Amino acid sequence: MKFCTHCGGPLHQSIPQGDDRLRHICGVCGSIHYQNPKMIAGCIPVFGDRVLLCKRAIEPRLGFWTLPAGFMELGETLAEAARREAWEEATVEVELEPLYTLFSLPHISQVYAFFRANMVEERYAAGEESLEVRLFREEEIPWDEISFETVHRALRFFFEDRRKGGFEFRMEDIGPDSRRMRKP
Amino acid sequence: MKFCTHCGGPLHQSIPQGDDRLRHICGVCGSIHYQNPKMIAGCIPVFGDRVLLCKRAIEPRLGFWTLPAGFMELGETLAEAARREAWEEATVEVELEPLYTLFSLPHISQVYAFFRANMVEERYAAGEESLEVRLFREEEIPWDEISFETVHRALRFFFEDRRKGGFEFRMEDIGPDSRRMRKP
Repeated sequence: MKFCTHCGGPLHQSIPQGDDRLRHICGVCGSIHYQNPKMIAGCIPVFGDRVLLCKRAIEPRLGFWTLPAGFMELGETLAEAARREAWEEATVEVELEPLYTLFSLPHISQVYAFFRANMVEERYAAGEESLEVRLFREEEIPWDEISFETVHRALRFFFEDRRKGGFEFRMEDIGPDSRRMRKP
Repeated sequence: MKFCTHCGGPLHQSIPQGDDRLRHICGVCGSIHYQNPKMIAGCIPVFGDRVLLCKRAIEPRLGFWTLPAGFMELGETLAEAARREAWEEATVEVELEPLYTLFSLPHISQVYAFFRANMVEERYAAGEESLEVRLFREEEIPWDEISFETVHRALRFFFEDRRKGGFEFRMEDIGPDSRRMRKP
């Protein structure tokens, strides 16, 4: 961040009055440019006893399997973002169940939300960002080819809870080493 | 948003290839400037049968009562953000209970998270952004002087669930007219 989005003036970093951390401030118009974590919304689309995964057509982790998820857009609710991503990446229409997992990833300043979801019908197809979309039974999940720790963990919880016969909202922090951080 | 933060060049709005919505794009270096919703983290600090509220010293809603909450910062977990805000606004140390509410406010592109929280001791004081901090019993809550619909709703749920003897995670969408939007 080098230039002001309002006036094009040069930015410097200093701590504004009443604040306690460095911000990018414009030397010309004085605008403060805050930066904040981003939210990612997704879902676990389920049809019968199978779960829908997408093979990524884009970096990072091209060729790895993932759940449909992506950055929340301005003007959306979390649920709208999750449904939109399911449609964009897997051309699948879902009915969302309650929010299932919420992960904080402080090292990349992201918060990751997955809903459980039921597929309205057995209809899906690879979207722009997917090479392939497929339904998997638990024993077919390609655990070594899962794209991200968030997806790995959401799937692991899902099958664990399904075996127990009840789903429990899960909130965890995930660190850069992908090991479990402390609970809140 | 008029100028590029990378090179200072003029921005225009168009839809990038493979995308489906208008973005701010730099005419000089081609950088795309995405904008995304912001997360707000807070808590309901409880001591015995009382809840801690802060009287706002800043706009918007100066002079109205609120729960300690604020924008999540880069590098934080949701829980860290909630604890930090409790300290900054009410000088109160809290132990967080599970996440309690998650509100989407699409008209202002915000997602609002409140934890339930236990105060470690009966010690608190107004921070920079508060005029006054006070513990309230349910019957003392100044319902007509609550700052935001998010706070109003979190408090209403809290007392409702406490009477029932069990707390249930609540996720809702809140619209500009402050009436309840559809559930996900």
